[in-house]
Amino acid sequence: MNNYKLTIQYDGARYKGWQRLGNSDSTIQGKIENVLTELAGEKIEIIGSGRTDAGVHALAQVANFKMKKNVTTEEVMDYLNHYLPNDISVVRVEMVHDRFHARYNAEEKTYSYKIWNKKYTHPFMRKYSMHVPEQLDFKKMREAAKYFLGEHDFTSYSNAKSKKKSMVREIYSLTIERNDGFIEIKVCGNGFLYNMVRKIVGTLIEVGVGNVDAASIPSILASKERIQTGRMAEAEGLYLDHVTFKN
Amino acid sequence: MNNYKLTIQYDGARYKGWQRLGNSDSTIQGKIENVLTELAGEKIEIIGSGRTDAGVHALAQVANFKMKKNVTTEEVMDYLNHYLPNDISVVRVEMVHDRFHARYNAEEKTYSYKIWNKKYTHPFMRKYSMHVPEQLDFKKMREAAKYFLGEHDFTSYSNAKSKKKSMVREIYSLTIERNDGFIEIKVCGNGFLYNMVRKIVGTLIEVGVGNVDAASIPSILASKERIQTGRMAEAEGLYLDHVTFKN
Repeated sequence: MNNYKLTIQYDGARYKGWQRLGNSDSTIQGKIENVLTELAGEKIEIIGSGRTDAGVHALAQVANFKMKKNVTTEEVMDYLNHYLPNDISVVRVEMVHDRFHARYNAEEKTYSYKIWNKKYTHPFMRKYSMHVPEQLDFKKMREAAKYFLGEHDFTSYSNAKSKKKSMVREIYSLTIERNDGFIEIKVCGNGFLYNMVRKIVGTLIEVGVGNVDAASIPSILASKERIQTGRMAEAEGLYLDHVTFKN
Repeated sequence: MNNYKLTIQYDGARYKGWQRLGNSDSTIQGKIENVLTELAGEKIEIIGSGRTDAGVHALAQVANFKMKKNVTTEEVMDYLNHYLPNDISVVRVEMVHDRFHARYNAEEKTYSYKIWNKKYTHPFMRKYSMHVPEQLDFKKMREAAKYFLGEHDFTSYSNAKSKKKSMVREIYSLTIERNDGFIEIKVCGNGFLYNMVRKIVGTLIEVGVGNVDAASIPSILASKERIQTGRMAEAEGLYLDHVTFKN
């Protein structure tokens, strides 16, 4: 059995997220599995490092799959890119050792969130960023970001759909950069609950606008009550940026 | 009468180009005129610095219009951005002297052309660049670019639809830059014939692939016969970059 590691980039707009739903063709996992099953001549299942929600993009999602047939990494890459729709691209294929598992071995995940912060919309980035026309106070947003660092129970930032047993996650870094009208928020951690990044970004925007006080974040976290933020950040600004693996 | 100068950015994908066709709503000029006519309470016509074809984008198209009503530049900008679709944005509004004319006073125009030069497609730029999977020889492309510089009769690079009397245009610069899988071609000149930039880029690609010899460009130009290039560069990679005006 050969074990292949894929690095995948996708525009999530058209899809119901990463994870296959039955035999649905409307997920990224489903699309890739269908092409690989054709190539392999056997039913192929791929393991993603984690799910992305409907509408969420990826710059470098990682997945692996096993296949009996001997095919070179170049052939796998060419075959996939030939048959996949052009909003999904496989940017790298590697042969990895037998025990590599894209989900179990994932050590850190980094998500990035793009906000377009001008009064008018950005014609070319309107589907790849969230438009926030209000002026944002960066000092306060950066102050707020600090409260999320470290290990916390993120129940307040989870979604009713979260079925994970533990709500404790550790955030290693959360940075906010401005660049030519864009604001890029990057968050790196050992894992994220369903909707957690979008809810954190939502709170950061509320702080930036002046609706929420940065200093209230510890008590929001401590309450373990799901926040009813007026503004959960939209899926279209969110990207799974990259995934780091244990050696 | 107040004379307003607009700087406009648009994603041309959905439109039949800049220039209004009858009362059509499927052009950028038409969309903007309809909104301004509402604001002004009188029929408004806008003058663009030049046309862009169906599917072509603009980073900074310039137009002007005259209106009797006294409205501040901020109000014009807010009104337009509020009522225009989100693939057209007005990024600047200025009050200019009465004789400013966006077409007659345009001195130089710069177009940029984006090529994505990897084997796989770019999920986020697939509608904003042309995908050329073949390897390109940059040295040869840059050599070819030099032959277009200066004043030439560009009949060979025009389209049968061109109705301009003179086919002579001057190109001031033509640069080719590589950046992380992208190739950006920028061409600046005193004016361009219908489809001229896309045909020039088409030839540059043919040279890069090895189908056309750079040294044959002077004879292509001298022949004054419209070239039947196998590859006219696609509209989706082309941007009207900016326009310079006489003082």
